[in-house]
Amino acid sequence: MEIDQLRKLLRDVRNHRTDVGAAIERLASLSTGELGFARIDHHRPVRRGMPEVIFGEGKTREQLLEIVAHLASRRARALVTRLDADVGRELAALHPAGRWNPMARTFYLPRPGRASRPIPGLLIVSAGTADLPVAEEAAVTADALGLAVERLYDVGVAGIHRLFEQGEQLRKARVIVVVAGMEGALPSVVAGLVDAPVIGVPTSVGYGAALGGLTALFGMLTSCAGGMTVVNIDNGFGAACAARQILAARG
Amino acid sequence: MEIDQLRKLLRDVRNHRTDVGAAIERLASLSTGELGFARIDHHRPVRRGMPEVIFGEGKTREQLLEIVAHLASRRARALVTRLDADVGRELAALHPAGRWNPMARTFYLPRPGRASRPIPGLLIVSAGTADLPVAEEAAVTADALGLAVERLYDVGVAGIHRLFEQGEQLRKARVIVVVAGMEGALPSVVAGLVDAPVIGVPTSVGYGAALGGLTALFGMLTSCAGGMTVVNIDNGFGAACAARQILAARG
Amino acid sequence: MEIDQLRKLLRDVRNHRTDVGAAIERLASLSTGELGFARIDHHRPVRRGMPEVIFGEGKTREQLLEIVAHLASRRARALVTRLDADVGRELAALHPAGRWNPMARTFYLPRPGRASRPIPGLLIVSAGTADLPVAEEAAVTADALGLAVERLYDVGVAGIHRLFEQGEQLRKARVIVVVAGMEGALPSVVAGLVDAPVIGVPTSVGYGAALGGLTALFGMLTSCAGGMTVVNIDNGFGAACAARQILAARG
Amino acid sequence: MEIDQLRKLLRDVRNHRTDVGAAIERLASLSTGELGFARIDHHRPVRRGMPEVIFGEGKTREQLLEIVAHLASRRARALVTRLDADVGRELAALHPAGRWNPMARTFYLPRPGRASRPIPGLLIVSAGTADLPVAEEAAVTADALGLAVERLYDVGVAGIHRLFEQGEQLRKARVIVVVAGMEGALPSVVAGLVDAPVIGVPTSVGYGAALGGLTALFGMLTSCAGGMTVVNIDNGFGAACAARQILAARG
Amino acid sequence: MEIDQLRKLLRDVRNHRTDVGAAIERLASLSTGELGFARIDHHRPVRRGMPEVIFGEGKTREQLLEIVAHLASRRARALVTRLDADVGRELAALHPAGRWNPMARTFYLPRPGRASRPIPGLLIVSAGTADLPVAEEAAVTADALGLAVERLYDVGVAGIHRLFEQGEQLRKARVIVVVAGMEGALPSVVAGLVDAPVIGVPTSVGYGAALGGLTALFGMLTSCAGGMTVVNIDNGFGAACAARQILAARG
Amino acid sequence: MEIDQLRKLLRDVRNHRTDVGAAIERLASLSTGELGFARIDHHRPVRRGMPEVIFGEGKTREQLLEIVAHLASRRARALVTRLDADVGRELAALHPAGRWNPMARTFYLPRPGRASRPIPGLLIVSAGTADLPVAEEAAVTADALGLAVERLYDVGVAGIHRLFEQGEQLRKARVIVVVAGMEGALPSVVAGLVDAPVIGVPTSVGYGAALGGLTALFGMLTSCAGGMTVVNIDNGFGAACAARQILAARG
Amino acid sequence: MEIDQLRKLLRDVRNHRTDVGAAIERLASLSTGELGFARIDHHRPVRRGMPEVIFGEGKTREQLLEIVAHLASRRARALVTRLDADVGRELAALHPAGRWNPMARTFYLPRPGRASRPIPGLLIVSAGTADLPVAEEAAVTADALGLAVERLYDVGVAGIHRLFEQGEQLRKARVIVVVAGMEGALPSVVAGLVDAPVIGVPTSVGYGAALGGLTALFGMLTSCAGGMTVVNIDNGFGAACAARQILAARG
Amino acid sequence: MEIDQLRKLLRDVRNHRTDVGAAIERLASLSTGELGFARIDHHRPVRRGMPEVIFGEGKTREQLLEIVAHLASRRARALVTRLDADVGRELAALHPAGRWNPMARTFYLPRPGRASRPIPGLLIVSAGTADLPVAEEAAVTADALGLAVERLYDVGVAGIHRLFEQGEQLRKARVIVVVAGMEGALPSVVAGLVDAPVIGVPTSVGYGAALGGLTALFGMLTSCAGGMTVVNIDNGFGAACAARQILAARG
Repeated sequence: MEIDQLRKLLRDVRNHRTDVGAAIERLASLSTGELGFARIDHHRPVRRGMPEVIFGEGKTREQLLEIVAHLASRRARALVTRLDADVGRELAALHPAGRWNPMARTFYLPRPGRASRPIPGLLIVSAGTADLPVAEEAAVTADALGLAVERLYDVGVAGIHRLFEQGEQLRKARVIVVVAGMEGALPSVVAGLVDAPVIGVPTSVGYGAALGGLTALFGMLTSCAGGMTVVNIDNGFGAACAARQILAARG
Repeated sequence: MEIDQLRKLLRDVRNHRTDVGAAIERLASLSTGELGFARIDHHRPVRRGMPEVIFGEGKTREQLLEIVAHLASRRARALVTRLDADVGRELAALHPAGRWNPMARTFYLPRPGRASRPIPGLLIVSAGTADLPVAEEAAVTADALGLAVERLYDVGVAGIHRLFEQGEQLRKARVIVVVAGMEGALPSVVAGLVDAPVIGVPTSVGYGAALGGLTALFGMLTSCAGGMTVVNIDNGFGAACAARQILAARG
Repeated sequence: MEIDQLRKLLRDVRNHRTDVGAAIERLASLSTGELGFARIDHHRPVRRGMPEVIFGEGKTREQLLEIVAHLASRRARALVTRLDADVGRELAALHPAGRWNPMARTFYLPRPGRASRPIPGLLIVSAGTADLPVAEEAAVTADALGLAVERLYDVGVAGIHRLFEQGEQLRKARVIVVVAGMEGALPSVVAGLVDAPVIGVPTSVGYGAALGGLTALFGMLTSCAGGMTVVNIDNGFGAACAARQILAARG
Repeated sequence: MEIDQLRKLLRDVRNHRTDVGAAIERLASLSTGELGFARIDHHRPVRRGMPEVIFGEGKTREQLLEIVAHLASRRARALVTRLDADVGRELAALHPAGRWNPMARTFYLPRPGRASRPIPGLLIVSAGTADLPVAEEAAVTADALGLAVERLYDVGVAGIHRLFEQGEQLRKARVIVVVAGMEGALPSVVAGLVDAPVIGVPTSVGYGAALGGLTALFGMLTSCAGGMTVVNIDNGFGAACAARQILAARG
Repeated sequence: MEIDQLRKLLRDVRNHRTDVGAAIERLASLSTGELGFARIDHHRPVRRGMPEVIFGEGKTREQLLEIVAHLASRRARALVTRLDADVGRELAALHPAGRWNPMARTFYLPRPGRASRPIPGLLIVSAGTADLPVAEEAAVTADALGLAVERLYDVGVAGIHRLFEQGEQLRKARVIVVVAGMEGALPSVVAGLVDAPVIGVPTSVGYGAALGGLTALFGMLTSCAGGMTVVNIDNGFGAACAARQILAARG
Repeated sequence: MEIDQLRKLLRDVRNHRTDVGAAIERLASLSTGELGFARIDHHRPVRRGMPEVIFGEGKTREQLLEIVAHLASRRARALVTRLDADVGRELAALHPAGRWNPMARTFYLPRPGRASRPIPGLLIVSAGTADLPVAEEAAVTADALGLAVERLYDVGVAGIHRLFEQGEQLRKARVIVVVAGMEGALPSVVAGLVDAPVIGVPTSVGYGAALGGLTALFGMLTSCAGGMTVVNIDNGFGAACAARQILAARG
Repeated sequence: MEIDQLRKLLRDVRNHRTDVGAAIERLASLSTGELGFARIDHHRPVRRGMPEVIFGEGKTREQLLEIVAHLASRRARALVTRLDADVGRELAALHPAGRWNPMARTFYLPRPGRASRPIPGLLIVSAGTADLPVAEEAAVTADALGLAVERLYDVGVAGIHRLFEQGEQLRKARVIVVVAGMEGALPSVVAGLVDAPVIGVPTSVGYGAALGGLTALFGMLTSCAGGMTVVNIDNGFGAACAARQILAARG
Repeated sequence: MEIDQLRKLLRDVRNHRTDVGAAIERLASLSTGELGFARIDHHRPVRRGMPEVIFGEGKTREQLLEIVAHLASRRARALVTRLDADVGRELAALHPAGRWNPMARTFYLPRPGRASRPIPGLLIVSAGTADLPVAEEAAVTADALGLAVERLYDVGVAGIHRLFEQGEQLRKARVIVVVAGMEGALPSVVAGLVDAPVIGVPTSVGYGAALGGLTALFGMLTSCAGGMTVVNIDNGFGAACAARQILAARG
């Protein structure tokens, strides 16, 4: 039921063209979604700030080109994740305003015109070179969600002193996303050093007992570092969304 | 929002005590559930026929006694599953109208007065003696849901000829629930013999490679016998509910 | 033993050419299948309505072409599932009466002549775009089994309001097949809204903790929505068969 | 190295009692912890606000009594989790100022004197009665961490309309902890309705395919509801810590 | 259909009291089992040699006492496995002719009268003391099945020289059952030394990475020692049955 | 130590060129293998009958060509399994006396000259078309091991009556290898019908809950059909070896 | 074959009482173990230093008492692990010279007389209080194997500064055994700080995603800290043995 | 903080240009890493001996070429593991001083000039041909770490006598790395024969129940051969590092 229809119904009641019993019946017969969910959607501030997001995996080249073309024609912001390189390049050629990030495997089409000022406070930390695609997916998503992103990369076990050297950067962050594969110990170490919320992102980097990321995931979940939470394996996108919820909801 | 409140609001619109804009705002601020879901609940025929069901596992003796006492005082039908024997006996002593089934680990409190006529067509088949508690949970639940239950027990591998001997009983059934542990092959065999819908219930009976019922579950799911569906391990209750949906929705 | 042989044996008994003891011995030496199973097969109504089904996965191009050619020469209906695109196209070129569905990965060869009227009442619901191949496998199979199929696609979490808007369509369905990957929550939501039997089909869509569909499968199995049953991961075919059993067995 | 020792060393340098080379050597020989970590500890605001936490599982009765007695003698706040009932009761008898919560299996010993004002904004939602111990562990922990806790319990599938009815309470919350076992779908539903950060806590409630909480855990991780994060199975404590990080770090 | 009924039918045909068409119909309407399976059962030589076997796990004391009493009254041989000690002792007291083996957890009731001569050739090898219950279950079962059993126990890694010392015993065996937990390497070693068929029985002995016997099971299955086969974890009973099939079928 | 060396040593003792102490020392310093294992190898009848077997998987084309060329030059029999098609064809071209079986993925090079008469009694049963490669690997291996092979293929669930029709063939077999994927129920059914030893070979055929063959494997292991044993997933080779051990050791 | 028998045989050769051919046959008929393995056993230095070790789990009280009594009567050193408390106390009462360690669940019976001087260099580090039983099992075993043990306990995440403070102790160790449950990160941290070999011992401490120690095990195995090795979950005994191999083999 | 800065600060204190309080504050504000970790790094002897190691998997061709070029320009030793063949060949062409090992998939760039003398004592044993890449990764790494490597390859089950024949080589080794796939029994056999530390390396060689190396891994972990430790599946690199720690730390 559109707002216009509701208004007309109420006017009919006021004008005695519809009596109260019939109006009650009409309202009671609304399916939930007709009224409730649509409205909720319109009022939700986050969704207002969110671009359309398309999960690229499992979609054909044709489907992806069509979806982005449709959104571009509506001048909507759009973020496509998990893109194959050839489709990414093709999108970039078709939509010069968009940004194809081959490392992150994302294509982002911003809204024409001036962007609002990004919300500061997010730090993305990653352990190894092989974790970069996931870290960058988080960074691109966060940028598309209106967050300013700081990066602290390549601070895994071999370079743990770099982590300690950046104590200032860690302490200033308001939310920290930590991306790590293998045994996934980095988020626990970070969570032990700061008071900001830490979101762990296990990656599928590793072999054998790494079990495709399950070991990193389970390690983060069982870590005794209080206050850390976790998202799915390789889910940089989800971590950025969670960071956005925390930062946007403030003040 | 109660119906009276809605009526009052619409009358206020009609009487110009509330203008249309304010009424729209008031209606738009309703949470979904206040209007929509309550109504859906009242119209659902199955829920009308369903007793209150209490899953006993993980509830304390005190909680269970209190819940049943409350339902009994409202003269509601109630079915409690996964009951420990001592609580079952205690409930039976407190509520003489109820039926404690130690094999099924259920306590069923029917509504005082005459029961409606049960819906025929359900056959419950089980493989071994150790599967009986699950088969009986299905049978007690089906009875509480208004179904007439036929039983064909102990027709596992050792007694497979009994299954073939009962071809008539199998062919007359309109829905068959087949309960089996170990490798869980019985439902496939039954599904290969009949045209009625077959619901497989894997049980946790077995050891070693039986993996607590997972092998029976996976075996049923991968069976090539077309048209069989499956519920959770040891979930006799769920199988009876599914049988009820199929039989009740007919005609 | 052919019926003619049996008749001859009995005539020999009647004509005293064979004595009773020898006839008993002869009958007792029949293997089960010679007599029993063949007869059961001939009497099964569903098998009469079923097309020949060929599971394409693991069969070579040559095997598939030969099987379909053989069935076509017998004017039998045939359904091939899990086809690679090139074999599908080749079959379509060879058998113009057949229908190659690249989304569903099926090739269906109907029987020449008029089809009987399809049985109504099946609704297939799917969550996301990536679940469509499985949903379409269910739809094509159901069509081949003589069911009329309604579709309600793309009503996952992001579009849950679409589900609620289609309350009427949900309530009118007599069986609902719900296809969903990731965490597989959609079938439970649907089962909570309707009284018809709901068959959940988990898909292998998702990554990381989705475990190739096991998480969706386990989620559906543990769902507390009573009366839902489940088939194997990506098994649209099996869900359609189960729906057929339920609808065909009715009245 | 105590601050006094450092001061003395520097004074010795100033007074030429120690030359620069020797001082460098002395400073360079400090183990990291002697200087760095101790200081970091003293500056961390969250740790200042944190009570001592003792994980009770795997500790003997004697160990627990002794630890709490020691902390009580130092007038320190202390929180013990995963307590067996008999030790809990014994602690309550020994320390009348403490609070033994048998449902949450916690013992909390507040600091003598006036508590500071709790930080508002946390809502704890739980699905079923069997999830209450975990929800209460979260609630007791949050209280001990200085948060004001609102509860919305028993809003699982059977009572989903209660969830929708409490839209206001959901929308006002600044962080929501959602506790659910079985298939663990509730956090996704909540995350779909609000913009606040949602922390999912899977519980080990369920049987068979619930896999001791792994299914709920995996379901939450693969949920497509953006912005949700997850903690370990049954880890109400960790969820409260994470909520504290989010709320305390704000503004 | 009893043999008498069949004889009567054929006589009726001969006597022209039943015509051939009616007899065909009558025979065709037999369910498979009525004729076929019963007969097959009577002709199977192994089943003739087999005692009745009752799997004790999951059966109540009452059920077990009743089953054994019934079989004893029919003078049938009976073997009960996986017995709790108290029921075992009770059975032994009630049936003095029976043998209760607390290590094997079996109760065996031989047939009154002279036993036939046991078939030689079976050697049962076990690795450690903790594997003895499974080895003894195999030994008792083999004895009940009419096999003569030789034992070679406690030849695990620590005592591997004992294995090599018994080369003669190994080489003379016609079938070898090897029982081993932990990493389950013993059967492969034995299979590498002899030409007789080797049946591996993994046990649930071990902890941690032993995974309740799965590691031993998988290790035996992946062993490169050709010609070894495997039964379920702790399934001494099944190994003895397999040995019986091999030895009995010979010559 | 070659036999000649041993002889020389003993002659030296006899001729007093070596005293007893030195001879003892020399003999005691033999590593086990120098004496013991070599001898055991020479006396083992099965190994005498065995061709050289090369597991092709994980070996390079070069390695395989070289190994076979070496064996051919020694006029040794050789069996290569798990061959890629191109290497198989290449071997067939290089060694015209050899047999490349593309279905079984084997290359077999018999010994020049007359073969001894094969041992009868092996029946290989398989469930579906997709299981044929494994069944044929078993058949080719058995042939190379000197067994005469009978085949009964394509008797899975859809064609179960074919199995019953072949009761005679089943009953005459002295060992039966049953190859089946999916839920793996066929070996149990066969084992229930015959007294010969049954060796189950689970295959990796299937999808989703088939878990790459683990479900078939676990199903066979937990089957209650006594006397069945199991080999690794897709291990047709091992099943043939086990059959050989059983048949060759007889009489 | 005893050394005396061998000597006699050679003398017979020398004295021409046995000819060379017969002696060759006699020697060739020796089973491997009779000569080879026994000798190897006698020459192995580690086994000389090792006490008899009895794994207590799965052995009955009677078996354990008898084994220890037998060893005590032979004045052999004995170490019993995984003892139940009551058997431990009983052994301590029976053998006053023995040491019952209830935390480690071990009973150690040293050899009467003076012990040799322990080998220095082993440091055992543990993470939490709940890991102490495993750490102590390692310590008691190491002591029984002749190693001097230093302990550094309770240096998990909460007390990580203690670890850094003990840099000296870490650097002086020649082998470090690190015991940790939960996510098992401690061994990696230690391995990153020192050059000595580090042996990680995962424990079953933890819940939910800790998976009974598998997460700690997998985490240690995938750790990128080079040079660390791992033993089974809770296997303090094995870690001490490995440390002994390293320390004893030196110099 | 560079050493120069620290010196300047102390001089300022001495010269009264900075007072003690300010200097304390300055020192206290150092992040841990600035002082502590850098120093530790410089003093670690192993790291001094270690080449730079680059894990090639998951890095692009461009990244790898650039990293090696950078290290070559600094005349640093470098070891790249898990290289694809084309990148390996390209590196070999660009850096003629480097060694590309296609079997091990490694590229090693030694330091120009004379190498120091390798440390003896390492023996690498492997089971089958398919295990060679992992064994060679260990060998190349060990060589790069300054160890002299002996090899004993192809001594799996089929060639176990070769293992026994090489008793001398086994006994002389000071550390033994044993590489084995399938059921992974070889390390246990070796550990049972020697007193040197044995490091097991499970490989992913095998199929079906080999579970990608998990069975070999679990088998090694549960082996009762005392004193063996284990590294990750296919982790030849890690085993060589561990061997280096053991050998380098000696004497």
